[in-house]
Amino acid sequence: MSAKMIGVGLGPGDPELATLKTVRAIERAKVIAYPCLPGAPSFARQIAAPYMPPDARELALEIPITTARAPAQAAYDEGAARIAEVLDAGEDVVVLCEGDPFFYGSFMYLHARLAGRYEVEIIPGITSVNAAAARAARPLTARNDVLSTIPAPLPDDAIRVRLEQAGGAAIMKLGRHIGRVRALLADMGLEQSAVYVERATLPQEVILPLADAPDPAPYFSMILVTKGTDPWLKPQS
Amino acid sequence: MSAKMIGVGLGPGDPELATLKTVRAIERAKVIAYPCLPGAPSFARQIAAPYMPPDARELALEIPITTARAPAQAAYDEGAARIAEVLDAGEDVVVLCEGDPFFYGSFMYLHARLAGRYEVEIIPGITSVNAAAARAARPLTARNDVLSTIPAPLPDDAIRVRLEQAGGAAIMKLGRHIGRVRALLADMGLEQSAVYVERATLPQEVILPLADAPDPAPYFSMILVTKGTDPWLKPQS
Repeated sequence: MSAKMIGVGLGPGDPELATLKTVRAIERAKVIAYPCLPGAPSFARQIAAPYMPPDARELALEIPITTARAPAQAAYDEGAARIAEVLDAGEDVVVLCEGDPFFYGSFMYLHARLAGRYEVEIIPGITSVNAAAARAARPLTARNDVLSTIPAPLPDDAIRVRLEQAGGAAIMKLGRHIGRVRALLADMGLEQSAVYVERATLPQEVILPLADAPDPAPYFSMILVTKGTDPWLKPQS
Repeated sequence: MSAKMIGVGLGPGDPELATLKTVRAIERAKVIAYPCLPGAPSFARQIAAPYMPPDARELALEIPITTARAPAQAAYDEGAARIAEVLDAGEDVVVLCEGDPFFYGSFMYLHARLAGRYEVEIIPGITSVNAAAARAARPLTARNDVLSTIPAPLPDDAIRVRLEQAGGAAIMKLGRHIGRVRALLADMGLEQSAVYVERATLPQEVILPLADAPDPAPYFSMILVTKGTDPWLKPQS
């Protein structure tokens, strides 16, 4: 009766970018849980679909996203209780996570509730940042350069100072903030160091110069800024 | 005759943490290249070994690491020339990369030399940062928190300001700098937010409170600092 919760990272979208370890955990699963918006399909489930046993029991944990956080947190309480019920019955639960479970992921809210009471295993996943860099052919960071992921909702001054102090950066959660971020990057002289990447590794992937990026930007998008300081990494002919 | 160089991320060490896409690229490979120290085994090759076809041709690219950078760069020139020779003959070359190819990886020096002349594909990999967080059960970053990877050789003041501005951080390349970094974290009141992780996901993995970490630290180690600001991510009972 020592069942465990297994949080599995599925990577950025291409099902082939799941790890062998994640795929094997899913293939063995009897119970598979995933957070999702009420009534909406789960992106993590879509990535995992090729590997899910047809007879696996699915727990769709509906989490409302509202300005107030209490409803979502109450939904995580309920989701954690549903997972705990399965664990208490001695069955493992695989929890699907797009990207990496501990990198801006909703899994962390289930983990906070259950890790103290149950055995938990985390299988890491490819983040959207590493995927976007690979697809855009932009080296992220080398030598003693700092790499930062920076959420676009932060104030301009906060973004500016963090960009100044990094050799590479991924600006996430663009949405309606992209115009402001674009103006900031232009003001900093970083437009030529930036590239816009949307839905990296999916069939709908878009990679564009920053000037051509859509406004507002969809949720699954980011700006990579690669201004690394290593002269030996300049493209050579 | 449009052969391509494929840089494949192998992840942090556990061969099961390679992606399906990386494994398939290796299994199909006729020519496999990897940078290594002169006379030393390649860690990337060790991870990839279970998937390498026995008859694949191997190009071990010996790169000396010295204080002066010119010898290493000359060795990358020579390594790139050896890869180019295979590509010119119409054969793809798979280049093995521990972790992710574009995250502090030597592959970037081959990419800088060859990407302008040849087709290149990058397959991302799990970074040591995501692996260490998973193994140490430490969520990296949530909401509007910044996540930064910070090389320990940077001066104290540079590390301090970047730690102050991040919700989560991974301090890499500890080596002989670990004592100085530990003192800095203590001074900042962050010792309790820090954990030391060495060789995450390998059989020799070590996870320790910062106070118990070895000095000097081995190359494959880091300190995770997780001081995230989200009250909803505090462990619950």
